[in-house]
Amino acid sequence: MSVTEQARRARAAANELATATRTVKDGALRAMADALVARTPEIVTANDADLAAGREAGLSTALLDRLALNPERIAGMADGLRQMAALPDPVGEVVRGGTLPNGLELRQIRVPFGVVGIIYEARPNVTADAAGICLKSGNAVLLRGSSSAVRSNTAIVAALRDAVTDAGLPADAVQLLDATSRESVKELMRARGLVDVLIPRGGASLIRTVVEESTVPVIETGVGNCHVYVDAAADLDKALAVVLNAKTQRLSTCNTAESLLVHADVAPAFLPRVLAAFAEAGVTVHGSPEVAAFSDAVVPATDEDYETEYLSADISAAVVESLDAAVAHIRRYGTGHTEAIVTDSAAAARDFVARVDAAAVMVNASTRFTDGGEFGFGAEIGISTQKLHARGPMGLPELTSTKYVVTGDGHIRG
Amino acid sequence: MSVTEQARRARAAANELATATRTVKDGALRAMADALVARTPEIVTANDADLAAGREAGLSTALLDRLALNPERIAGMADGLRQMAALPDPVGEVVRGGTLPNGLELRQIRVPFGVVGIIYEARPNVTADAAGICLKSGNAVLLRGSSSAVRSNTAIVAALRDAVTDAGLPADAVQLLDATSRESVKELMRARGLVDVLIPRGGASLIRTVVEESTVPVIETGVGNCHVYVDAAADLDKALAVVLNAKTQRLSTCNTAESLLVHADVAPAFLPRVLAAFAEAGVTVHGSPEVAAFSDAVVPATDEDYETEYLSADISAAVVESLDAAVAHIRRYGTGHTEAIVTDSAAAARDFVARVDAAAVMVNASTRFTDGGEFGFGAEIGISTQKLHARGPMGLPELTSTKYVVTGDGHIRG
Repeated sequence: MSVTEQARRARAAANELATATRTVKDGALRAMADALVARTPEIVTANDADLAAGREAGLSTALLDRLALNPERIAGMADGLRQMAALPDPVGEVVRGGTLPNGLELRQIRVPFGVVGIIYEARPNVTADAAGICLKSGNAVLLRGSSSAVRSNTAIVAALRDAVTDAGLPADAVQLLDATSRESVKELMRARGLVDVLIPRGGASLIRTVVEESTVPVIETGVGNCHVYVDAAADLDKALAVVLNAKTQRLSTCNTAESLLVHADVAPAFLPRVLAAFAEAGVTVHGSPEVAAFSDAVVPATDEDYETEYLSADISAAVVESLDAAVAHIRRYGTGHTEAIVTDSAAAARDFVARVDAAAVMVNASTRFTDGGEFGFGAEIGISTQKLHARGPMGLPELTSTKYVVTGDGHIRG
Repeated sequence: MSVTEQARRARAAANELATATRTVKDGALRAMADALVARTPEIVTANDADLAAGREAGLSTALLDRLALNPERIAGMADGLRQMAALPDPVGEVVRGGTLPNGLELRQIRVPFGVVGIIYEARPNVTADAAGICLKSGNAVLLRGSSSAVRSNTAIVAALRDAVTDAGLPADAVQLLDATSRESVKELMRARGLVDVLIPRGGASLIRTVVEESTVPVIETGVGNCHVYVDAAADLDKALAVVLNAKTQRLSTCNTAESLLVHADVAPAFLPRVLAAFAEAGVTVHGSPEVAAFSDAVVPATDEDYETEYLSADISAAVVESLDAAVAHIRRYGTGHTEAIVTDSAAAARDFVARVDAAAVMVNASTRFTDGGEFGFGAEIGISTQKLHARGPMGLPELTSTKYVVTGDGHIRG
């Protein structure tokens, strides 16, 4: 079936889903969870075949690990769906409302987008997550996973669709697109009018392609060249804890710190400590000459280092003469994801927050907190780094649009 | 100067504007208003030259009227700017906030987009309006007006920039792009990273081009194939008033009704009345055979008629067998702008509101009410017909993004 035909079916399903009650949608989510658990053997078998093909194709151990499913991971996917059932329904929420001077009653209410397309890479758990969050927000979803996970995703989606049908909703609310051809991505990007929004989740090059080629509106996610700036007025113990956590708590996430900026006033006191800690943690520091002055282990930083989202045990580092210089550096190299300042100066914190333009600005906190779970959203479909529609972690409300409902009694405009 | 260079300057201006206080911004708006009034002779002279060139180029009387400025119209532009100064500043508004279980303080606050590009057609009053609404919301603006208004727009922008400078803000917050070449539009559409959002205001073909070719995120505006559905349970006096107002109160606006759907049960009672009223108002009805049965003046409707946003004294009309059929017709031909039902049945109203997917749904009210002024927004930059970011009339908050500010005390993620 062509992507266009699948999108048409999704549109029809979306029309039904838009008016489904929370009770019915939550019932479907629980049925989806049950189906994943019940059909674990079938999913694991499919996953084994993907893993075997992946090993044959020479996938890295890291990629194979992301691809791998076992009964515990499948149970985790099911738990995620059950948790979504417990979250409030964003659809129907009145965002603003009131009575106009002429007596017209105005309400702006949340409605589903309609059809959401998601393009993502290896992890098959995203399949269940994305299906769940879209269904809960009343959207039909078109899932375009990676070819390396095609058997796993097919087994997962088969289970989910049966559960959706059993719950009385249209199976086409959840559809998998052909992952073996690039054509399906192209067709999806051109399905304007049938697909309401496209969310690419993956590496920078995937996101760039989608942003440049899609006529369907896109929500850009995930590229994070995040900085921690240690201010002249920083508590250096807190700074050390925040910097280490931001870099090393998990290396390959978009909210991981990739660059350290240290105010010149505290560089002599702070850099030896942080460089020693990084050395112990196995992190390579790519630093300016001012940083390298404190340790032979520092690798000279190039301009490219400051632009790089390493996603590895590497960090770039520079000494800055002022908060102004830190802000200028971040404006030049930052990707607008998460930027942090460590300072005990209220004025410095206020200034940094006001002038740094990013989805999230942290004051005395690790960049790793930019996360739907940490923010208390309960579910997350990705972290938007664009300014339109949604910025930062996207939960259920971010998967909705709004509609104005205006009620009168034969009102006409004079 | 190239558009890219202008966009760079706008970006620098936006950085200053983002932290400007409301007092300073409102002072600039009032100075802009004063400058327009003080420099009326210069603006009128420039406009006379545009009008003369327009007449020579054979512009229609309607277009020449839209292009024309006089001291009253200029005073109206100035008043608009003064009214914007009285509106609340959207920047800094806390959209949501609270304290997380770990003690982190989370606030989501409104911030300007940064740089907004606006592509618009003849009316030079849009120049002052757009500059004002962007400045008030903390955004630098790149204005790409039509070539027919180039002298008027140049004079207006010169006055506005001087006023912005006098008020202590960077002149490059308001810039006019070259209106004589198509290249400037192309460059603007490719200025991703420098321009945060592009708003095309104009005809369907301009909007389609921008949507398809822009890599800068776009907010689609304005195309409205709006329907009025007269339900079986309609009060026919109210229905007549609403239908006539929706079609004839102003012919060329996007919220004007372009199509009438009448339930078969009330067609015999309603159609003769509405057809007579349309005949008297000089409106041509393009109707299905069921409609034509009631008047010889009805022109047969083609499928194209049902798709057409006439913006003229024409309306398409059809008889439908049910509310379901009305919804199906609207889903097929509607553009998601404004759809109206006239009914005294609460069940029918509820059903129509739930199932019709549009920026605004009117119950017993004219489609003409979809308007920032009518909704009480005080200022409007256009009416979005897309689902992403903003839907319906866009006021000041719709010209902002948000930023999460997270404050801790050395918090790290465990």
